[in-house]
Amino acid sequence: MKRTEIATLGEFGLIDHLTGDIRLVQKSSIKGVGDDAAILNHGEERTLVATDLLLEGIHFDLVYTPLRHLGYKAAVVNFSDIYAMNGTPRQITLSLGISKRFSVEDLESFYNGVKLACSIHGVDIVGGDTTSSLTGFTVSITCIGSAKEEDIVYRNGAKDTDLIYLSGDLGASYMGLQLLEREKAVFDGSSDFQPDFAGKEYLLERQLKPEARRDIVTLLKEQGILPTSMIDISDGLSSDLLHICKQSNTGCQLYEERLPIDYQTAMAAEMFNMNVTTVALNGGEDYELLFTVPLTSLEAMERVTGVRLVGHMTKPEHGCHLVTRDGQEMPLRAQGWEPIAGK
Amino acid sequence: MKRTEIATLGEFGLIDHLTGDIRLVQKSSIKGVGDDAAILNHGEERTLVATDLLLEGIHFDLVYTPLRHLGYKAAVVNFSDIYAMNGTPRQITLSLGISKRFSVEDLESFYNGVKLACSIHGVDIVGGDTTSSLTGFTVSITCIGSAKEEDIVYRNGAKDTDLIYLSGDLGASYMGLQLLEREKAVFDGSSDFQPDFAGKEYLLERQLKPEARRDIVTLLKEQGILPTSMIDISDGLSSDLLHICKQSNTGCQLYEERLPIDYQTAMAAEMFNMNVTTVALNGGEDYELLFTVPLTSLEAMERVTGVRLVGHMTKPEHGCHLVTRDGQEMPLRAQGWEPIAGK
Repeated sequence: MKRTEIATLGEFGLIDHLTGDIRLVQKSSIKGVGDDAAILNHGEERTLVATDLLLEGIHFDLVYTPLRHLGYKAAVVNFSDIYAMNGTPRQITLSLGISKRFSVEDLESFYNGVKLACSIHGVDIVGGDTTSSLTGFTVSITCIGSAKEEDIVYRNGAKDTDLIYLSGDLGASYMGLQLLEREKAVFDGSSDFQPDFAGKEYLLERQLKPEARRDIVTLLKEQGILPTSMIDISDGLSSDLLHICKQSNTGCQLYEERLPIDYQTAMAAEMFNMNVTTVALNGGEDYELLFTVPLTSLEAMERVTGVRLVGHMTKPEHGCHLVTRDGQEMPLRAQGWEPIAGK
Repeated sequence: MKRTEIATLGEFGLIDHLTGDIRLVQKSSIKGVGDDAAILNHGEERTLVATDLLLEGIHFDLVYTPLRHLGYKAAVVNFSDIYAMNGTPRQITLSLGISKRFSVEDLESFYNGVKLACSIHGVDIVGGDTTSSLTGFTVSITCIGSAKEEDIVYRNGAKDTDLIYLSGDLGASYMGLQLLEREKAVFDGSSDFQPDFAGKEYLLERQLKPEARRDIVTLLKEQGILPTSMIDISDGLSSDLLHICKQSNTGCQLYEERLPIDYQTAMAAEMFNMNVTTVALNGGEDYELLFTVPLTSLEAMERVTGVRLVGHMTKPEHGCHLVTRDGQEMPLRAQGWEPIAGK
């Protein structure tokens, strides 16, 4: 593969090279890359802003993460934040810290992943910053979205009689990470090792190339359902549900038997001798939507595919519990991936 | 000094701790820290977005950079981008990558610097992300500003007969950096070394605690002057003036004898055996405003204090030149600090 040293382009040349083919599609993108700031016109709508910082060795391992997938994921996790507000992502800014070990082609791969995600979700790249890094690859994305004021869904709107719904399934991304980490450890000891991921493709895809659930937001709108609260699952169901309960001042009952878990996730958890419920509750990086609706929406919710009723809110004095298969109530704890405490 | 390990707070505890005392002051800040995204209402105005990524060892050295100053500078350089569009900064998001070697008090110092800058400029912190870093301290700030459509000043609006103005003076920040680097080298060899910065305070302040020139933007408005193009000096006057010329399709004549240079800068350049003109042209990190106005604004510009006429635009075929004190024309080159090419 061709390798062009970044030094041959220089900083501005590199930015021109990487962003030269970006075409703005949003009517609200008045001005994109090429000036001190991007200019957006959101007219009568609210502007939403979400931001994420991804650091090598913490959030991703380039040994098994293709740069194209990393670019895709870095964009999608920000879109997911905007969808979780019931908004529409419109623009992103993308800042990169890169070291000499990266070639122009590497960065093209990364950008192609970002551009693919943006193209699927109709989002413009309107600015950013590219600099060298003495150490790892650094990615910072800020996403700007919009929503009508009356459509915005907060974390603090749940009522103590609401139903709790969840899109997709849980734990697959975490099991995908376990697989990749194990294969990396094996690979470190033997250079001709060929990992066998047959039958585990779903887990790898969930880890390496997650999706943001625009489809769910759209389905809810079509059914005229406005959730009372919503969040995307990044830290893990326990942690994220506790955020909603804390901010809405409610308790909750979550039913273990209702947790959506894919067959591959269950198989992998067994193989790794892990409790699959713990994986589903605390794995994180699922980027599914967790939301609450009033009891009166039960019937309308039956017409929304791809989501499952997993529990209900309670009065705050009841606390936050998981109801196990045998009917016991276990306190829910935020055991999610806490990147700072863990290091 | 008290040292609280970050692990005792956890990620969310840390964020609550650091952002709990933030009060939103902007009418357009509908929702700040505490949900998936910030919500802004810019009504009929344009929204401006600027972003900067600062990495330890590349953009700052914590050996001689107090964290409070770093926080202040990280915020101010983003405000400067918004002022350079003739806009008003309104909100920022702040993402940090931190390692175990930082204490809560360290991060408080950093945040206090950010908050001071925000308070001076009337800007809200509306969101962000905090994560651990395996290596250096990482800072990513995105600033959202606003401006009326008709007030926005681009880089591409200069005409070939326009006058070129510059606020403040140049090269001091670069000489401050040279001083700090030299003292660091001396310090590395002798632990009881006491640097003597007497008479060089201005240079250190320009490097460690630069200001964004809101005052100039305000003065221009008061005089009814709308620049035809504007940029802030981050990479160096040469590099940034060439950006304007390229995007406006003009040439330029810049006069060496007109370059504003402080006495301390000149003395330090002599001490380091550097050409002070080269320092002024290519030092960078001045965060002064470089802008062009029509010839017809010459009289009104005389009522704007703190700026200096440094040259004029020309037709593009004349090229971009520095006219030296002895009347020679030297081609202007972007020799600014190019962080990627240099590594």
